[in-house]
Amino acid sequence: MTAGPLGVALLGSGRMGAFHAQTLARRLPSARLVAVADPAQGAAEYLTGVLGAGRAYTDAAQVWDDPEVDAVVVAAPARAHADLVVAAAAAGRHVFCEKPMAVTLPDADRAIDAARAAGVVLQVGFNRRFAPDWAAARALLDDGMLGTPRLLRSLTRDPGGFVPARVRPDTVFLETLIHDFDTLRFLHPGAEAVEVHAVADALVEPAWRDRGLLDTAVVVVRFADGAMGVAEACFEASYGYDVRGEVLGSGGMATMGDGRRTGMVFSGPGGRVAETVRSDQELFAGAYTAELAAFVDAVRGRTPPPVTGEDARAALAIALAAAESVRAGRPVRTDEVEK
Amino acid sequence: MTAGPLGVALLGSGRMGAFHAQTLARRLPSARLVAVADPAQGAAEYLTGVLGAGRAYTDAAQVWDDPEVDAVVVAAPARAHADLVVAAAAAGRHVFCEKPMAVTLPDADRAIDAARAAGVVLQVGFNRRFAPDWAAARALLDDGMLGTPRLLRSLTRDPGGFVPARVRPDTVFLETLIHDFDTLRFLHPGAEAVEVHAVADALVEPAWRDRGLLDTAVVVVRFADGAMGVAEACFEASYGYDVRGEVLGSGGMATMGDGRRTGMVFSGPGGRVAETVRSDQELFAGAYTAELAAFVDAVRGRTPPPVTGEDARAALAIALAAAESVRAGRPVRTDEVEK
Amino acid sequence: MTAGPLGVALLGSGRMGAFHAQTLARRLPSARLVAVADPAQGAAEYLTGVLGAGRAYTDAAQVWDDPEVDAVVVAAPARAHADLVVAAAAAGRHVFCEKPMAVTLPDADRAIDAARAAGVVLQVGFNRRFAPDWAAARALLDDGMLGTPRLLRSLTRDPGGFVPARVRPDTVFLETLIHDFDTLRFLHPGAEAVEVHAVADALVEPAWRDRGLLDTAVVVVRFADGAMGVAEACFEASYGYDVRGEVLGSGGMATMGDGRRTGMVFSGPGGRVAETVRSDQELFAGAYTAELAAFVDAVRGRTPPPVTGEDARAALAIALAAAESVRAGRPVRTDEVEK
Amino acid sequence: MTAGPLGVALLGSGRMGAFHAQTLARRLPSARLVAVADPAQGAAEYLTGVLGAGRAYTDAAQVWDDPEVDAVVVAAPARAHADLVVAAAAAGRHVFCEKPMAVTLPDADRAIDAARAAGVVLQVGFNRRFAPDWAAARALLDDGMLGTPRLLRSLTRDPGGFVPARVRPDTVFLETLIHDFDTLRFLHPGAEAVEVHAVADALVEPAWRDRGLLDTAVVVVRFADGAMGVAEACFEASYGYDVRGEVLGSGGMATMGDGRRTGMVFSGPGGRVAETVRSDQELFAGAYTAELAAFVDAVRGRTPPPVTGEDARAALAIALAAAESVRAGRPVRTDEVEK
Repeated sequence: MTAGPLGVALLGSGRMGAFHAQTLARRLPSARLVAVADPAQGAAEYLTGVLGAGRAYTDAAQVWDDPEVDAVVVAAPARAHADLVVAAAAAGRHVFCEKPMAVTLPDADRAIDAARAAGVVLQVGFNRRFAPDWAAARALLDDGMLGTPRLLRSLTRDPGGFVPARVRPDTVFLETLIHDFDTLRFLHPGAEAVEVHAVADALVEPAWRDRGLLDTAVVVVRFADGAMGVAEACFEASYGYDVRGEVLGSGGMATMGDGRRTGMVFSGPGGRVAETVRSDQELFAGAYTAELAAFVDAVRGRTPPPVTGEDARAALAIALAAAESVRAGRPVRTDEVEK
Repeated sequence: MTAGPLGVALLGSGRMGAFHAQTLARRLPSARLVAVADPAQGAAEYLTGVLGAGRAYTDAAQVWDDPEVDAVVVAAPARAHADLVVAAAAAGRHVFCEKPMAVTLPDADRAIDAARAAGVVLQVGFNRRFAPDWAAARALLDDGMLGTPRLLRSLTRDPGGFVPARVRPDTVFLETLIHDFDTLRFLHPGAEAVEVHAVADALVEPAWRDRGLLDTAVVVVRFADGAMGVAEACFEASYGYDVRGEVLGSGGMATMGDGRRTGMVFSGPGGRVAETVRSDQELFAGAYTAELAAFVDAVRGRTPPPVTGEDARAALAIALAAAESVRAGRPVRTDEVEK
Repeated sequence: MTAGPLGVALLGSGRMGAFHAQTLARRLPSARLVAVADPAQGAAEYLTGVLGAGRAYTDAAQVWDDPEVDAVVVAAPARAHADLVVAAAAAGRHVFCEKPMAVTLPDADRAIDAARAAGVVLQVGFNRRFAPDWAAARALLDDGMLGTPRLLRSLTRDPGGFVPARVRPDTVFLETLIHDFDTLRFLHPGAEAVEVHAVADALVEPAWRDRGLLDTAVVVVRFADGAMGVAEACFEASYGYDVRGEVLGSGGMATMGDGRRTGMVFSGPGGRVAETVRSDQELFAGAYTAELAAFVDAVRGRTPPPVTGEDARAALAIALAAAESVRAGRPVRTDEVEK
Repeated sequence: MTAGPLGVALLGSGRMGAFHAQTLARRLPSARLVAVADPAQGAAEYLTGVLGAGRAYTDAAQVWDDPEVDAVVVAAPARAHADLVVAAAAAGRHVFCEKPMAVTLPDADRAIDAARAAGVVLQVGFNRRFAPDWAAARALLDDGMLGTPRLLRSLTRDPGGFVPARVRPDTVFLETLIHDFDTLRFLHPGAEAVEVHAVADALVEPAWRDRGLLDTAVVVVRFADGAMGVAEACFEASYGYDVRGEVLGSGGMATMGDGRRTGMVFSGPGGRVAETVRSDQELFAGAYTAELAAFVDAVRGRTPPPVTGEDARAALAIALAAAESVRAGRPVRTDEVEK
């Protein structure tokens, strides 16, 4: 039926791109890494060399010319995402795009329109939807066990070590909390976010404050039905990488995000100790594989893409409203950021 | 040295008052219930009859005339608290006052001033400070293990069944979240809350909305040092009574509020099940006893009162700012509610 | 109805006796410490002095002559227990006896017979039955949720620091595991233990081996209905005091013994850390109080004593069979130790 | 260096075989399913059809003639294992053999000798060693954190539904507890088991008792250094598949086997509920993949096989001693079963 594994090219070979490349080369028999493109001198060669798989390109145009490329994984810097999605669609390639799919709403619209016009699959990298805890909570919601959501929470804490040069004022909203905004929407299916209030500061690195950089934020999201979501982020947690979620509905509560590395517990002179997860790639290794497997299934026509360009756009609108809320010092309605 | 148990009178014999009366009569050998006063016909008689202890009065004035009364526990409706504190102080009695100590800042000031002028002990019923999880978190803070707090959280969820007649628009802030505001302060010792933003709605009972009643709220509290606190409340949780706290500091995180009734776990056809706590009096039975024991110690001069009138006032200011924030639809600075 | 608190005398003021004395003096308003008797020079004086309560005696006979003594708590060395129970009964005093009630079956029978003949209440200090986890598991059993027990487990681990001079070859069975033998019986109500196989060694202190002392043991107990119980003890756990239980029945499993000091969890550079309980008196403070409260209720005629002399005898028979099993190197039937 | 994925044939297409076939076909890019052999009419065809991979054979001889077969996975009935290992070795094929590798010690020796003589890799399917909890506990042991093991435990509970026709008197020891015996050895590296005492019965299906079938067992294993291990099995747990382990050493305790399906917890009217794992293939999916990946690495010469024929033999000796202990009603030394 299917003529072997899906041929996938990677665009961007940074930290996240390299992990996706490993998945395509070593963890996902249904896909095959056929190329890596990165404009940085030697970057693509290095990665294909390590993996023993894929051709190395420095220009995305080479990817569009490669007949073995059925689809691309976009893992370039965030600001290049939308243009790459549009280019891939123009070249008739299916696209899996890392979050954020775009950093402006018009760009998000361009990407969505291009994929639709070209008839290619467009899937966005909100990997938490594929993590077992989150998928199980959503199943409870879909089964009606949680009733109507009233209070939701999603939080992200990174293990620290951020490089200021890579952080812009909106990074915490557009690149970190965008996951949490999607999670709030995922856990309140069909609800529309109408108002956002955010507070944020440079608490990990107070020296960043003068440069307008933000490393810690709390964002309250009101939904049209009155439900309230809280998204929270901090760029440093001494204990590792921490991602959690919670839904309180009329029927009960689901909590997600156990944070333990394994179920092994050591009891010693200092008490009872469980190892904690130390990175996103450790915590979500399975989810990263599962989202690419789902993308292959979507390309093969077996299932619709589980995270759409519209999902990416909706999360982006919340992120933009949050950033504006910090600047304005007041709640901002999501329709304020629409043009 | 001490001539037997401290003689204590209870003012107000409702749900919480009755529990304190039981503690004084049956759980705290260092105190003795000598009287119960309640203006409701037969209420004090009923309670003293059940407990087999204490004289029954219908008027607080009878308490002030009773020479066996060394101290009072104020558990009347919230709006009567401040006046009763002032009256007790005028009568030279030590006062343990249930929260909120007052519902306006001038009333809070009156109560504080009266106690100080009379030289009596004034302690306020923020019982969570005496619960083992919270005390242990504070010990970690005091030991420096948590470093500087950055993100704090405190939440309260009641098991439901609230009677609308007893709920006013500000109840969720003045009577429920006041605990969480104190907890945020307790977990960030010495920090000053400067700005509050609250969203609230009637999500449990949408029919309350038109009457301005609120049953669900999220409050973001900014501290002067930039730290952010989130307080959250809902009047109904299908699984019982849920109180939790969390501090993320530069050194690590403490989480409080396990929610389990016992450590016994049943694994059966439906999975693994732990009983959950179903009421505040079940969850905090030990803390309610401990706070009264601490009050006795304070009266005996062994320790200063661990929760002061000033603590009550500071939490009240946050609550008033939160209520105003909902009305105004914007963040409110705590100094805005200071006249 | 009842003329005030029950007057209780303590016989034996060692570690456990001192704790019971504190409970009688400070934690249990329904009882009153009226005397402490201890043959050791100054021991009773010291304890009554610290507590500011009770007369000090050096001879149990003084207790029998004290008209304010309604009941006694026997906390003398184990080998004196049975004689003291008999003497108390002869003096018409109700008796709460620490475990083991006796160290031989004839002594156990003497104690039971004496209490019955005198018509006094005899209750034995198997405190775990009063701990919330264990009581909750028993409630599940009584409700039928666990079905018929098939596999049971009870274990005890002490925090170490044992003094060899106080340890005899059978101590691990008669003084430590006797709790676990009672727990196995408590969790399999009505079942009869028929065969015991024990292995034991000096693993904590190998130097004890030559003196026949044992610090680590595993005991398999067969019940008449085929159910299997495992009791396990070790005199040293680096992480504190650890007591757990488990029942697997046809309906499901109950597990008891959470081991955490509080529900507070610290997540830091070393992972997630929960404090562990460090002593029996810390873990079972509530249970120790509850068993004395139940004793008072039994004396007042409100309830039958919840742990009887017959319960003590049945656990002793298992302990004696376990000790014999180690000596003989084979399974021993409980009827082998009867005469 | 390596010329593509390792070609693997499966011998035996039952429940476990089918799962290994899926892993080879879909989860492990470094291996490839080239054939399935099963003497049952149509069985191999069915499985290769479902997977869309591999040739179907009814005779192992066809496997030996297939030049694409580099290695075999033996998943036939237990009693055929040793002969298939010997045949594979004779045919120059590397062998991954499901547990038990043999059901008699002479057969185990034959298998070990054949693999050694042929110079092929022989690895045995003790999958728990590859599960994260167990690997983490072993890492603690290797790091010295646990000190010297004193008390060990390993238990296995199946979700029920066993078919009596497939159960023999020794099944609980040779096929179920063999995992636990290996685990006890894995968690006490280098220690020698010297004596075994087992009790066992038909408690799940009392009607089996007359036919000598056993569904519930407790086995105490003494090691040469005095350490005590307890292995426990039951063929039915109402809550699913339960595998746990524990080591108490002089430095502390490690516990393994969390049993939860995901980290998601539902709090509802019935309390707090976590889904439990329902089958070995669900619990150990990752471990089953990891052990085959390790086998590929061993065949490629990258690492020695992590579970050897000698490991299989040592666990078998404990199992045979346990079975004999039940028959004899006494402890049995492992050297008694060495002819």
